[in-house]
Amino acid sequence: MDSHVRSLLTSSFLSSDPETEFVDQIALFAALLCGCIVVGHLLEKSRWFNQSITALLIGLGTGCFILYASGGKSSRILEFKQEFFFIYLLPPIIFNAGFQVKKKQFFRNFMTITSFGVVGTLISFAIISFGTRRLFPMLDIGYLEIKDYLALGAIFSATDSVCTLQVLNQEETPLLYSLVFGEGVVNDATSVVLFNAITKFDLSDMDLYIGLEFAANFFKLFGLSTLLGVGVGLLCSFIIRTLYFGRQSTDREVALMILMAYLSYITAEVCGLSGILTVFFCGIVMSHYAWHNVTHKSQVTTKHAFATMSYIAEVFIFLYVGMDSLDVGKWRFINDSPEKSIWASVILLVLIMIGRAAFILPLSYISNLIRRDHNEDIGIRQQFVVWWAGLMRGAVSIALAYKKFTGSGQTIQPVNALLITSTITVVLFSTIVFGLLTKPLIRRLLPESSQTEPSSPTSSMTPLLENGHDYDDPENGNNRTLRTKPSLAMLFNSPTSTVHYYWRKFDDACMRPVFGGSGFISYATGTRDMDVIH
Amino acid sequence: MDSHVRSLLTSSFLSSDPETEFVDQIALFAALLCGCIVVGHLLEKSRWFNQSITALLIGLGTGCFILYASGGKSSRILEFKQEFFFIYLLPPIIFNAGFQVKKKQFFRNFMTITSFGVVGTLISFAIISFGTRRLFPMLDIGYLEIKDYLALGAIFSATDSVCTLQVLNQEETPLLYSLVFGEGVVNDATSVVLFNAITKFDLSDMDLYIGLEFAANFFKLFGLSTLLGVGVGLLCSFIIRTLYFGRQSTDREVALMILMAYLSYITAEVCGLSGILTVFFCGIVMSHYAWHNVTHKSQVTTKHAFATMSYIAEVFIFLYVGMDSLDVGKWRFINDSPEKSIWASVILLVLIMIGRAAFILPLSYISNLIRRDHNEDIGIRQQFVVWWAGLMRGAVSIALAYKKFTGSGQTIQPVNALLITSTITVVLFSTIVFGLLTKPLIRRLLPESSQTEPSSPTSSMTPLLENGHDYDDPENGNNRTLRTKPSLAMLFNSPTSTVHYYWRKFDDACMRPVFGGSGFISYATGTRDMDVIH
Repeated sequence: MDSHVRSLLTSSFLSSDPETEFVDQIALFAALLCGCIVVGHLLEKSRWFNQSITALLIGLGTGCFILYASGGKSSRILEFKQEFFFIYLLPPIIFNAGFQVKKKQFFRNFMTITSFGVVGTLISFAIISFGTRRLFPMLDIGYLEIKDYLALGAIFSATDSVCTLQVLNQEETPLLYSLVFGEGVVNDATSVVLFNAITKFDLSDMDLYIGLEFAANFFKLFGLSTLLGVGVGLLCSFIIRTLYFGRQSTDREVALMILMAYLSYITAEVCGLSGILTVFFCGIVMSHYAWHNVTHKSQVTTKHAFATMSYIAEVFIFLYVGMDSLDVGKWRFINDSPEKSIWASVILLVLIMIGRAAFILPLSYISNLIRRDHNEDIGIRQQFVVWWAGLMRGAVSIALAYKKFTGSGQTIQPVNALLITSTITVVLFSTIVFGLLTKPLIRRLLPESSQTEPSSPTSSMTPLLENGHDYDDPENGNNRTLRTKPSLAMLFNSPTSTVHYYWRKFDDACMRPVFGGSGFISYATGTRDMDVIH
Repeated sequence: MDSHVRSLLTSSFLSSDPETEFVDQIALFAALLCGCIVVGHLLEKSRWFNQSITALLIGLGTGCFILYASGGKSSRILEFKQEFFFIYLLPPIIFNAGFQVKKKQFFRNFMTITSFGVVGTLISFAIISFGTRRLFPMLDIGYLEIKDYLALGAIFSATDSVCTLQVLNQEETPLLYSLVFGEGVVNDATSVVLFNAITKFDLSDMDLYIGLEFAANFFKLFGLSTLLGVGVGLLCSFIIRTLYFGRQSTDREVALMILMAYLSYITAEVCGLSGILTVFFCGIVMSHYAWHNVTHKSQVTTKHAFATMSYIAEVFIFLYVGMDSLDVGKWRFINDSPEKSIWASVILLVLIMIGRAAFILPLSYISNLIRRDHNEDIGIRQQFVVWWAGLMRGAVSIALAYKKFTGSGQTIQPVNALLITSTITVVLFSTIVFGLLTKPLIRRLLPESSQTEPSSPTSSMTPLLENGHDYDDPENGNNRTLRTKPSLAMLFNSPTSTVHYYWRKFDDACMRPVFGGSGFISYATGTRDMDVIH
């Protein structure tokens, strides 16, 4: 390519007028997103690729091209601001996660998921913080405070299980899917809450009192965030149920659901809570109550519109991470010592793998012990898949690293620059290398996955759950009866299902008459059969 | 309210940390949007209000409150950037307009709509430019170039028929609805194209040659924009048809349609074309071809998701305009001569009314002359409604005025400040006063609107159109036959339907086999009955 073409490219991508430039950038990004969708669709059947890797590679390719076209000046066309990620891209992904989660599976494995997501993340955080505190000084990379090591622990505890979820099948391996999925969401929330708590607290002179205060603050954040999400979800259900929105316009219902979900997220952020947890529980409550109060058309629309928004946001993130990772500004600072950055990345990767194994194995063992029905045990192969699924690091890690180690988008201190480049290296390596291995690995580990674990959601585990927690069965919705009263013995045998029994009694008596839900629809006339929509 | 509360409010709304402030602003805006939707729903049955006025008044109220809370410093929580409006808010509104337009009615009245939208806007533009050129110097407001007067003409030719469309019923008065709606879209496009042409061209020494070049440029923009929109729409239809997206994921289809529509808009903007025209025609083509290639679930989702996005964008705009209109920065400059601003607004309002009457009456007369079937004549009452519908000025006028008369968001020259405040006054007055009168007026003018004009889309006008241009009839979709061959006499009698005959022949023979469309679906198995979705 001669210099004329290059200057033409430069002028079109990097024109000097900021407004025109911005429009150009958006146009290129929209075109790349379309490209990612089409290429991702074409590679759907491929043995190795999935949507995330496709987007990441297209982003890398575009970054290379722009780097060449701009003569090595820049590789990106839009600047990554961590606010952009947290304000616009993350909420639709997490809300959709809550909205689409199979509530029955999720709540049945609630204890295991929560222990993986909260306790596991804390273990992983402790190991990574401790490991970096021990090993990083050997690299002679510069001085880091104790707070920085803790932040590193939080940053690299945030998993990205999107890759694995794209390979697992929710119908074939419901237990595995709900474990990986549920852990992913709870893990996201935990690591972000942890990160915020670390940056806010003064942890320089750590003692027991500060440690306890820190823990109390952490659980307060957790509880309040959940409450806020449940509250907004219930309010939305109540409004839609009372005012019969669908009677005049189905679009208004959908708009209200989207806006109230977003409002819950942003309110949590304003109040210093965890928006991720809030919007996740808001999504669960909305799909349990509000979704049943809207018209059939709104049900189909919300189901797919939320999934589409989440899908676009995911592709956008991977595309951006790919493009941004070549940004020259970050790499310039480590020019003189590239081997330090590589060693730091290797240390982080090893710590991630150890930190994850250190909680998956014991927690699975405990979970299997508590479980009475050993048909649902988490076998060693499943444990390996769950371990593998959490090795990838993604956009949350990048965004947190930016938040911590850059001033206003610009990397100044060499040690901070090194940590940023190491983060990018870990994210790229884990997403591409581990990601490419995921499909073949899971095919090999779970050859006929439908046989390796109970495939039907109405398994033999407990008769109490037979009707389905989702209340999606149109026949049983209105006058379902709770056939068996739980005895004291059952409470010890299967605590989750006993809790579930009382929850359903409470739900039927107090909640559903007020907030709606399947079988309590006074307005919508359309069919409520989930099969139409699934 | 004492000063303590005030300072509390100030600190919460106008905190000094820019990042926190931004999150606060978004939270407040999301809450206001939810409020607008709920209040708008409650006032739905009101004799006077509609969604636009509700949002505008809520915006004004919030503006007052913030003005008070901040001690008169600021009334707005987010700064209006005209790029924001043109890049994010306008595209979904116009795309949805094209996607949902009843194509049969639109193309049947194509000549009338285009003459109203293009010729009418040009007449209105000429009258307003000429009128302000004559009358404004009398006010002694400062020196304006000829280019500024022309820009004023373009700014105040941009109508906002959202208010009226919310009152008119597409089923009861299809002719009137399609006239008002079609004119609104074509008018938007014309005035923006006109505005861009004016700001780009050097019109200081106007002669015949420059005038002709200007006209040629105008029509080139029109043609190329339309072509681009049709091209992207066809490409999208072709991709979805060829690659059977829905087979794997319905969300991917929806994402691709949204992104390609947006890509068409932003590409047009990058190329200096009219994004509005492009995305409008892209919407028409997508609903004619691509929409029939996707799964049934995607059809329901796109239909309502696009309408929801458009709805949110509209409410957002009116809410913002209401809030922004109290911004003190703009009003400070005209403190010494408020009567000048008022007189300028009165002049503009009168010119708008004259300019609109000056083309509605003659063009309707000509349209009635050409029409052979006088059952479909535009009566004097309908003419009055069409005239009235275009009196409101809205967000496009505001955005264009900002683009022209402010530097980088800040109003500097007194004469420019005066023009901005006059624009805001005209927009507020016309939307609120004219808008409040719209419902009662239309109820009075069209007492039983279904009787005043042919209500059925399959009217007696021409047998050729009986099967419906939309091809939405599932029975006739696949093997519809063109019963009557048009004769030469018919070409003169009803040129539109003759063109339509040949278009359908071409569509059947060349277009639909390649790009899909009703009856050419090879994959989707769901029912294609529009009634399910409407």
